[in-house]
Amino acid sequence: MSSDASPAPAKTPVTLREVAASAGVSVATASKALNGQGRMTAETRERIRETAQRLGFRPNSLAQSLLRRRSFTVGLLTNDTYGRFSLPLMSGVSDALVDAGVSVFLCNVEDDTRLAQLHVEAMLDKRVDGIIATGKRIDRHLPVDLANLRIPVIYAFTQPDPGAIAFVSDDEGGARLAVEHLWRLGRKRIAHVSGPASFAVVHARAEAHRDVLTEHGLPVSEPLLGAWSEAWGHEAVAKLFGGGREGAPDAVFCGNDQIARGVIDALRERGIGVPDDVGVIGFDNWEIVAEATRPPLTSVDMNLSVLGREAGLALLSLVGGKPAEPGIRKLPCRLVVRQSCGRPPGG
Amino acid sequence: MSSDASPAPAKTPVTLREVAASAGVSVATASKALNGQGRMTAETRERIRETAQRLGFRPNSLAQSLLRRRSFTVGLLTNDTYGRFSLPLMSGVSDALVDAGVSVFLCNVEDDTRLAQLHVEAMLDKRVDGIIATGKRIDRHLPVDLANLRIPVIYAFTQPDPGAIAFVSDDEGGARLAVEHLWRLGRKRIAHVSGPASFAVVHARAEAHRDVLTEHGLPVSEPLLGAWSEAWGHEAVAKLFGGGREGAPDAVFCGNDQIARGVIDALRERGIGVPDDVGVIGFDNWEIVAEATRPPLTSVDMNLSVLGREAGLALLSLVGGKPAEPGIRKLPCRLVVRQSCGRPPGG
Repeated sequence: MSSDASPAPAKTPVTLREVAASAGVSVATASKALNGQGRMTAETRERIRETAQRLGFRPNSLAQSLLRRRSFTVGLLTNDTYGRFSLPLMSGVSDALVDAGVSVFLCNVEDDTRLAQLHVEAMLDKRVDGIIATGKRIDRHLPVDLANLRIPVIYAFTQPDPGAIAFVSDDEGGARLAVEHLWRLGRKRIAHVSGPASFAVVHARAEAHRDVLTEHGLPVSEPLLGAWSEAWGHEAVAKLFGGGREGAPDAVFCGNDQIARGVIDALRERGIGVPDDVGVIGFDNWEIVAEATRPPLTSVDMNLSVLGREAGLALLSLVGGKPAEPGIRKLPCRLVVRQSCGRPPGG
Repeated sequence: MSSDASPAPAKTPVTLREVAASAGVSVATASKALNGQGRMTAETRERIRETAQRLGFRPNSLAQSLLRRRSFTVGLLTNDTYGRFSLPLMSGVSDALVDAGVSVFLCNVEDDTRLAQLHVEAMLDKRVDGIIATGKRIDRHLPVDLANLRIPVIYAFTQPDPGAIAFVSDDEGGARLAVEHLWRLGRKRIAHVSGPASFAVVHARAEAHRDVLTEHGLPVSEPLLGAWSEAWGHEAVAKLFGGGREGAPDAVFCGNDQIARGVIDALRERGIGVPDDVGVIGFDNWEIVAEATRPPLTSVDMNLSVLGREAGLALLSLVGGKPAEPGIRKLPCRLVVRQSCGRPPGG
């Protein structure tokens, strides 16, 4: 219970990790600062050196560091030419790596096996420390086999090889957030309009929709499956509301924001008010769509930049020699509430 | 005038460039194939070797090649976290480089000078052969000085340093395409609704709008400047059509696709038909917006992937030691015609 803030003499040798933590930098940055390598501001280097000195860190312990055998580069493979999903993901990956002094080779492999193979071989040629594989959907492999490389591989938002480490969004959990939000607002007839049946996430979200309705004793309706488009949102409204308002839904949970935008536009054109008559929720939280929708759209955010950051940190940890359990890590989604669902009764 | 297809014995030594051209690959790929370096399919390597043999190329001339002093990596700096512009641009850059066996370090520097400086230093550390600097608008510098690096730098869709080589879209030309298209369709009162006055492109496009109207003897109206948003499109329609249809425009050329979408939605809600009563053109050809607009939107495409490809090829050329004139290269836009302008009279 001493109030003395100066550190007690260490009994075991001070580790590089402790220096890094105390200086508020990554292990790799601390290593480079103390080696006189790498690029950082003079202030950062000086601060890390002072921290090492204060803690009694002995620089020659670095000689054993695995870090020195690294290229401080990683490869990021993606087939998401469109970029809606890979961009936030990449910004998260980059965020995790920049502090560790690691640079990223970005390789867009589209759906071309030969191109993907060339890129992977170029990465190995350049001795990347590891690879992050990302895609545009979590139920499809990249068009290249990464299972037997001699460097660590992390999968993010793409189908992993068996026995690999992968980070994906928790789609069931995200859908639950949406449907439970509508239920808490007093909505009773909650329809679900989603994308093509060939997508695994379509089934995951539809199942969560059905489960939540069942748990709360609400009537369960079959999901309407179609395309990931505004046009399908319009069509779905014609199906759901074409017979008049009697028995029609008072809420629509949509499989993506484009569908939701089509639903909201179509409802307005039928004179049905959102959120007064019908609450609407989207999925993806694609801000440029969600914010331009009238009214602005409540939507499920897959937290892809967090997912990218976790993937980046996991790769750094593997590269640093720390083993990790294989398997799929599902990361939680969050609900971004705007104006398309209204307020709770009395709220 | 011989019909003999076999090559005559060369008088001057056959160059690597000739081998590459004949084999249909880049100089860098040819170099790597003949050195037994790099990664490519066995078929490609064999084809290049056969071509070299057929042409009488002597591999030892490679000893003088500058190519061997290269890292076959380049850095791509961007501050376009949003990615709408940098993604097609990057895909063009990557397209130009992949055949040359060059990998790309992607560095997102946001608007953070310190981060940008760290990334540039990391790139230099890794001995990149050159840097491509791209941004989200052509009238702003990246937050870092690239003027005095000892490696080639190409600017694409961002403000260059003086004396540099830059590729930008020809905004005046793009706007002319739009306004002349409306004029050819017989539109007489062509309004212009655009983004904030702080953007250079807003002035370039507005000037072209005025010039085309003047050239064709059509009445010139002041552009309405606002935000790059759908909401501003709605507001602008209220201003332009709030006094009734008498004297109101029969066409609106919009500064981007989001404004155009707002304009079209607002016109429909006033019972004004697009394209029958009013023709509308957007700018950017952002497909996900342009195709979902009702009716689908005719829009100016800045050809950013072509621009990226040209920038990539220009960098490769500089890296290969070929000098190039400094200056700004304006690349043409193209008009993508959908259904928002109608057909020409009698068309």
